[in-house]
Amino acid sequence: MKRNHNLFFRFLILVALTGIMSVASAQFGQRGVVSPVVHDDGSVTFQLLARQADKVSLSGSWMQGWGASLEMSRNDTGLWSLTIDPIPSEMYTYTYQVDGVRTLDPANGLTVRDGVRNESMFIVKGQRGELYSSNDVPHGTLSKVWYSSPVLKMNRRMYVYTPPGYAEGNQKYPVLYLLHGAGGDEDAWTTLGRTPYILDNLIASGKTLPMIVVMTNGNAWAAAAPGDAPAMAAPADRMGLAGKFEESLVKDVIPFIEKNYRVQTDPNHRAIAGLSMGGGHTMTITNNNPGMFSYVGVMSMGLMTGNRMGNYDAEKHKEQIAALKSSGLKLYWIGCGKQDFLYEGVVNLRKLYDEQQFKYEYFESEGGHTWPEWRIYLSELAPKLFK
Amino acid sequence: MKRNHNLFFRFLILVALTGIMSVASAQFGQRGVVSPVVHDDGSVTFQLLARQADKVSLSGSWMQGWGASLEMSRNDTGLWSLTIDPIPSEMYTYTYQVDGVRTLDPANGLTVRDGVRNESMFIVKGQRGELYSSNDVPHGTLSKVWYSSPVLKMNRRMYVYTPPGYAEGNQKYPVLYLLHGAGGDEDAWTTLGRTPYILDNLIASGKTLPMIVVMTNGNAWAAAAPGDAPAMAAPADRMGLAGKFEESLVKDVIPFIEKNYRVQTDPNHRAIAGLSMGGGHTMTITNNNPGMFSYVGVMSMGLMTGNRMGNYDAEKHKEQIAALKSSGLKLYWIGCGKQDFLYEGVVNLRKLYDEQQFKYEYFESEGGHTWPEWRIYLSELAPKLFK
Repeated sequence: MKRNHNLFFRFLILVALTGIMSVASAQFGQRGVVSPVVHDDGSVTFQLLARQADKVSLSGSWMQGWGASLEMSRNDTGLWSLTIDPIPSEMYTYTYQVDGVRTLDPANGLTVRDGVRNESMFIVKGQRGELYSSNDVPHGTLSKVWYSSPVLKMNRRMYVYTPPGYAEGNQKYPVLYLLHGAGGDEDAWTTLGRTPYILDNLIASGKTLPMIVVMTNGNAWAAAAPGDAPAMAAPADRMGLAGKFEESLVKDVIPFIEKNYRVQTDPNHRAIAGLSMGGGHTMTITNNNPGMFSYVGVMSMGLMTGNRMGNYDAEKHKEQIAALKSSGLKLYWIGCGKQDFLYEGVVNLRKLYDEQQFKYEYFESEGGHTWPEWRIYLSELAPKLFK
Repeated sequence: MKRNHNLFFRFLILVALTGIMSVASAQFGQRGVVSPVVHDDGSVTFQLLARQADKVSLSGSWMQGWGASLEMSRNDTGLWSLTIDPIPSEMYTYTYQVDGVRTLDPANGLTVRDGVRNESMFIVKGQRGELYSSNDVPHGTLSKVWYSSPVLKMNRRMYVYTPPGYAEGNQKYPVLYLLHGAGGDEDAWTTLGRTPYILDNLIASGKTLPMIVVMTNGNAWAAAAPGDAPAMAAPADRMGLAGKFEESLVKDVIPFIEKNYRVQTDPNHRAIAGLSMGGGHTMTITNNNPGMFSYVGVMSMGLMTGNRMGNYDAEKHKEQIAALKSSGLKLYWIGCGKQDFLYEGVVNLRKLYDEQQFKYEYFESEGGHTWPEWRIYLSELAPKLFK
């Protein structure tokens, strides 16, 4: 049989080498261009072949300030390049602007989508880079799962991460419900949030217990991420959907998970956490359902003051906090960055909790309202759950 | 509790509308630009704001010929646009060239990756468009699953599609092993191939029986798609891996699936199909293991002649065909496009099979060695399986 193997293999190598594999770079004039090149010291070289362009610049998630960019320089072959000073170990996204038009790096196949925006991606090795990478450790399974939502009157999609070993055994696992922010969808925690990688790595190192992680779509009007939601009449009254996602998580999602997965169904094995809008969802759900979750994580979301308060009922909220206090909560965790535009709201929330003698753990990072912070928060919070 | 719902919801709507949601289009100067716009008659309008560009052109998968493109025209606001004549219902990919640099459409969040190349994507409604879309039908579950491969000495990743109803019942299902081509990986059939959508839709319409579909990574040297494979020493001898993926499918993948999923494990409920390189894998595996699969699909792959034959052993092959003939095969299906660059090889394969009085079903399409053909082949083949 050996000969037959070789026949097809050799032919296919030929096809691959002479045809299909080289199309990507050759057809669009990027032949031989390797970009980005991440050097050992954390400096990075970006390259783009753009013979007819007048100006090429680079924008990256490591730069400070909205719309920040650096000009690239052109050599006499039309290759534009730029090497940036070393940056810390992290996952980064970037784009080029070619004569004013945002483009992905055609030499880099790795991309991530943030809402409706796609960017090129790379990882600088080191501690965080390792945490966010696929390493040679046991891997969990990530599944796109559809479920019926009677509350929202549609079939909806979510991701379910089951930890390494789930398929082989009969063990029941605790569950973390992990919620995204405004502009995101059920993809966000799996891609930008690197959740499967972080969990795989933390579980492998023994820092985090094996758990199931459920990542829903928090947009009550949507069935799934763009392109995967069946076409349907848009709800006439989006404001009328206020609170409906939160209700759906409790009435639709949790029962589905507890019916279809091997799950520990008591509150001590149920956690919920969310970022920004998802932090608001988390607060609403836990305020309305004291005792349902023993572990709560609120990321980059606080209490709003002034005009934003609307018809906020302070007395009602104090009653809810009192109910949470006596609900057997094991951990209420708050994470926020010093540069977060919601920082003041978090200060106010902590002040209220302090006044009410409601215990919480607070983690403050240096950054803003961005994914590097939320990845850190997940990797800080996950080791504290179910212990 | 109603008030508390409203508080967070209103605040978050505010955040969403004023901040996060508008960043994508505003920051990069595409505010208000909607692209592509697919009109009811199948014509499509593409738009890109590129004030400083000298030339913008459009390349799309519906155009004939490598590197084909159409120039777009600029209006006095710097908006470049082009409306193409109606094209048939289908899934299409496209890119712009902005002053010679390939770019995705920044106004379109939908992309697909083909090997190392990303492209923007849209669907023209109609028969095929519906077949390739997420519709309001029961959906299967798509999972990224890691498994141990003793043959290839690594943990590897594959996708497993389980049909609607799998989670709820105790039914056992037949399995289709579906293999990608050179330059692809385990993502290819799930994204470019639209397999979960096609299966969901064919199963919902009653045309196809519920089945499990297993989509592996056919590159014996890789653990997973780019970015998801753990860093490891590259195999010194890729040629030494000839035949190893095929061996691994039989020795590693099939036992894993039959152990971990509710699967009908007899040959009459086992199918294998592949495109291009995956068609070669399919032929090698079925030639070497007569009786293992009762359903076989070979897409865009045939028998090579002349110099490409290498050490092809024609007598051995005839023995293998004879063994397949007496193996209880229910269907041997071949699909090829008239413009496929491997068309002659398929003619030769059919000629050999005819000479050997080996029965097969042949499906010929109009196109070439491209994904529109392979999506059609899957939707033609799936309804014939396990019946």
